[in-house]
Amino acid sequence: MDNSMNALPEDTFKILIATDNHLGYSEKNAIRGQDSFKTFEEILELASVNKVDFILLGGDLFHDSRPSTYCIYNCIELLRKYCLGDKPVEIEFLPDQSYRFQRNRIVNYEDPNLNVSIPVFTIHGKHDDPTGNKQISVLDILAASGLINYFGRCNDFKKVDIKPILLQKGEVKLAIYGLSHIKDERLGRLFLDRKVTMKMPQGEDWFNILVLHQNRVARGVKNFIPESAIPDFIDLVIWGHEHDCKITPEPIGNNNTHISQPGSSIATSLALGESIPKKVALLQVSKDGFKMIPIPLQTVRPFILDELFLENPQSENYLYEKPSEQAVDQVKQKINEMIAKATTQHKDKSKPAPLPLIRLKVFYHNEQQMFNTVRIGMQFSGRVANPDDMVKLNSITAKEKKAKSKFEIDEDELEEFVDINSWATSVEDIIVKCLSSDEKTKEMTVLSTKDLVEAVSGFIKHGNSDVISNLVKTQIDDTVNDIVKMDPEVDQIAEAIETLRDQRIRKAGEGNVEAGAVLQDLDLSTVSRNTTKQNSTTKEDSDILELFRDDKPSTSKAPPKKKNAPRGRGSRGGRGSRSRGKQNNSGTSY
Amino acid sequence: MDNSMNALPEDTFKILIATDNHLGYSEKNAIRGQDSFKTFEEILELASVNKVDFILLGGDLFHDSRPSTYCIYNCIELLRKYCLGDKPVEIEFLPDQSYRFQRNRIVNYEDPNLNVSIPVFTIHGKHDDPTGNKQISVLDILAASGLINYFGRCNDFKKVDIKPILLQKGEVKLAIYGLSHIKDERLGRLFLDRKVTMKMPQGEDWFNILVLHQNRVARGVKNFIPESAIPDFIDLVIWGHEHDCKITPEPIGNNNTHISQPGSSIATSLALGESIPKKVALLQVSKDGFKMIPIPLQTVRPFILDELFLENPQSENYLYEKPSEQAVDQVKQKINEMIAKATTQHKDKSKPAPLPLIRLKVFYHNEQQMFNTVRIGMQFSGRVANPDDMVKLNSITAKEKKAKSKFEIDEDELEEFVDINSWATSVEDIIVKCLSSDEKTKEMTVLSTKDLVEAVSGFIKHGNSDVISNLVKTQIDDTVNDIVKMDPEVDQIAEAIETLRDQRIRKAGEGNVEAGAVLQDLDLSTVSRNTTKQNSTTKEDSDILELFRDDKPSTSKAPPKKKNAPRGRGSRGGRGSRSRGKQNNSGTSY
Repeated sequence: MDNSMNALPEDTFKILIATDNHLGYSEKNAIRGQDSFKTFEEILELASVNKVDFILLGGDLFHDSRPSTYCIYNCIELLRKYCLGDKPVEIEFLPDQSYRFQRNRIVNYEDPNLNVSIPVFTIHGKHDDPTGNKQISVLDILAASGLINYFGRCNDFKKVDIKPILLQKGEVKLAIYGLSHIKDERLGRLFLDRKVTMKMPQGEDWFNILVLHQNRVARGVKNFIPESAIPDFIDLVIWGHEHDCKITPEPIGNNNTHISQPGSSIATSLALGESIPKKVALLQVSKDGFKMIPIPLQTVRPFILDELFLENPQSENYLYEKPSEQAVDQVKQKINEMIAKATTQHKDKSKPAPLPLIRLKVFYHNEQQMFNTVRIGMQFSGRVANPDDMVKLNSITAKEKKAKSKFEIDEDELEEFVDINSWATSVEDIIVKCLSSDEKTKEMTVLSTKDLVEAVSGFIKHGNSDVISNLVKTQIDDTVNDIVKMDPEVDQIAEAIETLRDQRIRKAGEGNVEAGAVLQDLDLSTVSRNTTKQNSTTKEDSDILELFRDDKPSTSKAPPKKKNAPRGRGSRGGRGSRSRGKQNNSGTSY
Repeated sequence: MDNSMNALPEDTFKILIATDNHLGYSEKNAIRGQDSFKTFEEILELASVNKVDFILLGGDLFHDSRPSTYCIYNCIELLRKYCLGDKPVEIEFLPDQSYRFQRNRIVNYEDPNLNVSIPVFTIHGKHDDPTGNKQISVLDILAASGLINYFGRCNDFKKVDIKPILLQKGEVKLAIYGLSHIKDERLGRLFLDRKVTMKMPQGEDWFNILVLHQNRVARGVKNFIPESAIPDFIDLVIWGHEHDCKITPEPIGNNNTHISQPGSSIATSLALGESIPKKVALLQVSKDGFKMIPIPLQTVRPFILDELFLENPQSENYLYEKPSEQAVDQVKQKINEMIAKATTQHKDKSKPAPLPLIRLKVFYHNEQQMFNTVRIGMQFSGRVANPDDMVKLNSITAKEKKAKSKFEIDEDELEEFVDINSWATSVEDIIVKCLSSDEKTKEMTVLSTKDLVEAVSGFIKHGNSDVISNLVKTQIDDTVNDIVKMDPEVDQIAEAIETLRDQRIRKAGEGNVEAGAVLQDLDLSTVSRNTTKQNSTTKEDSDILELFRDDKPSTSKAPPKKKNAPRGRGSRGGRGSRSRGKQNNSGTSY
């Protein structure tokens, strides 16, 4: 990272970086319904005012994989307003070794029928992933209409070959490796199986950006992508999915790789991480290096989160007769203070301050102190944006219990997490129990239990009934194809089908579907390091590095040399020190 | 209509006319899933090959108001492929008195950022009407992306003012009056209340096209728009919604108005009307008149529908021991004949004939002749496109009973009709019963029962839960606004709310929600004539004519004079003879 950039404008990429815009979030809410659109418009305006070469988004442009008609419409209106026009595009797309867009579509600004002024490049996230009939993402709709360039999609579930988008402006060359969201467990498995490769372009002097949309933070379940998995030659990672704004690039490893986590542009929960002021960034890349200027977003609704510990009624100095009345008075006073604080955060005095999001966690000592949170909310109606869920009551005892748990997780997030997961876990439990392979009679002949669990879980989360029928269709088709290839005798077909199913189970590590077992496997940092140590004590974790490289490196495809610190395999002595330091901290991602 | 056109190409509009493309119909069906897209592509190809000036669609471009992501994606891909390009658009849009597109959007081919080669103009139909959050149609998405021009939308439920699209090519002027689908009952009510007007442009010599999407055929319920409601000055009506292809323009009234009913481009049921060969048309309009050339569609799957009357086992010459076996043999033979017939219909020998749609209605005399229709279907799997619903068994007695009923309706259609309506009727019944205004205690304070019935019925048909909350919101908002305007004393607010509700009920004619009563009102041809007769015996039905005209005609806005027969109010002596002649015939529309 270099803050003293002397390169000429024609030799400097100007890129607007944002992620997790969650268009359509809470769109039916009378107060907050327009929030996601307003902020997305602000981002597009920033891109326009700053005359950027392009916009790079990190996934979850939409909050739903099947957004409402209104939401798609609104997004198209905005993109057409800001991204078409007469401003010439000064970057060159190098198609030869580049990522191929779906249906071999060309990059949108080269289409002679469209007058694109700001190209948008995006991967998909966890919310706007391909789904339903023919596995089409809502981003495909935008791409088909020529308004965005959707990349980084991996259609093969058995391996991930990442080809970058290659761009040139003047003398600067940019390679953007896109990795659209893949289920963290699956991606983890692919890493372990050495099935993730990045196809580096020929020549040197590429500035390499990796944009991905995965868990970065360890939550209750260890299904996250460790930073140690990022290969050396990547200069900058744009990490989508995590909603906490940590946009200023942080160096990892030997300081040649930086991670920027832009965070969401809208709070989709009232968790702590969402209260960090929201920003996007202007990224400039020249031969001298890169510079990333954070830009605070003005349209984001202020969000004040605080705690209030009520006085203990058993304490000696307690003066009140009715503890609940005292609680209400104290809470109201606190909320008024929070609203005042929100107002001071409002900078643009030419516009009225928007109603703030307020979340007050009230801790009580005994039940006499409890009060009606709905009534309190109603009293602040018209002054806060979320009167319905403004106050949360918790007992101090419960808090103390939680503090002892291993992960110090923001409790709202935990609630949401537990909600979703208790469902998923119970469905898993039920299916696994019903179809346990201990009893041969119960076992399914063709389908794999694990995939069925995933499909059912997908159905529950997205309300998308296609996932199950798609799974059945795919696995039957695969089995039929494999059987045709094997060409067994008629009386051996049944046996062959069983063999295929067992192979599939073995591949998916399905034998491990027990509490914790699969998840344990996916702690890549641990597993990979252990493996490496068994192989070699000097190379340290070079194995996991290799996972990310092209399987067949050749001299012509040699990784580019760095000016300051030429890096090769095994030269990354500092890798071991790459733990995030705050591994136990909470994060917010949805 | 003039078949001898001598006008120059630069003075002749060339328009491709189609309707009811129902994109996405049965899109998950393994055999038929692509049918709607294939034929729509054929239509776009025809437009391109014939170098038309524009495409005019009559609604129901989509089969669902919330099509799948895949369906929207596919449609956009096709429009972008065929409707963008370098062919210059030679028509001029006259904005001054023209229909204003939503959000004051300009006509798409005048957008400097898009290179439109074939403009598409469309109204919405019954399937792709605005719905959900903010009442957005999927057509709005296409319009926002600049691929179509969506017009004829009426946002006011209390009156319909139709402003035409005004186009000019050389010396020919075209006014296209668009009337997107409105619930037939509501439109009928608006006609009766003289709330439908057409804003004619200044000047003369306009060729006037009305494109609408409504019931044309009287079905069990009399909720259709009679041809007598079409005003005199309209030269050509493009009638969407009815699926039977009757594309050749038929004269009505004094032969100055013609109706073309293009029909759907895909069979969405196995009814008789859908078996009429599907066509689109090339419409040419010059100063000499117009010409309409039907073009048979090649990609439409052949559809053979037939009946089979089994021999009566009680007849003297009956030879078979097992009547059901005899039935199966006879049925199989008949289906083989039908498949052979379908094959002969396949003209393009360069491509393999697509699997045909087959519908055989088998009539039996007694139950011994019944057989397993599913098993028969399975035996024809791979030879027909619809093995699952190929054969329908009916008893001859039931057929005879039906023949005596008043309406001679195609029975498949009747089945569907009855299905939907028995639901709607029963829901109506329940709500009306629960909320009967006879018992004041049961009555709702703000909402109108009729609107609630409609909303619930909409919810059932479209699975769209927003309609109910939208209704509640709208009516509450309206009431609050009206109350604010009335500004009553505090103790009179309750009374004022009741007054408002009663006004609303009176307006909607809710007092008539009894079996048949509302529907009776909507037989416009009858009702309007009666009204007219009471007012004047000489003017005949000029009143209903006026419904369609501008409320305030002025000399500057005089209706254009016709070359052959100048028509004014009351001059339409022949109106009475405008009954369709085949009023009792069936039609197919969905």
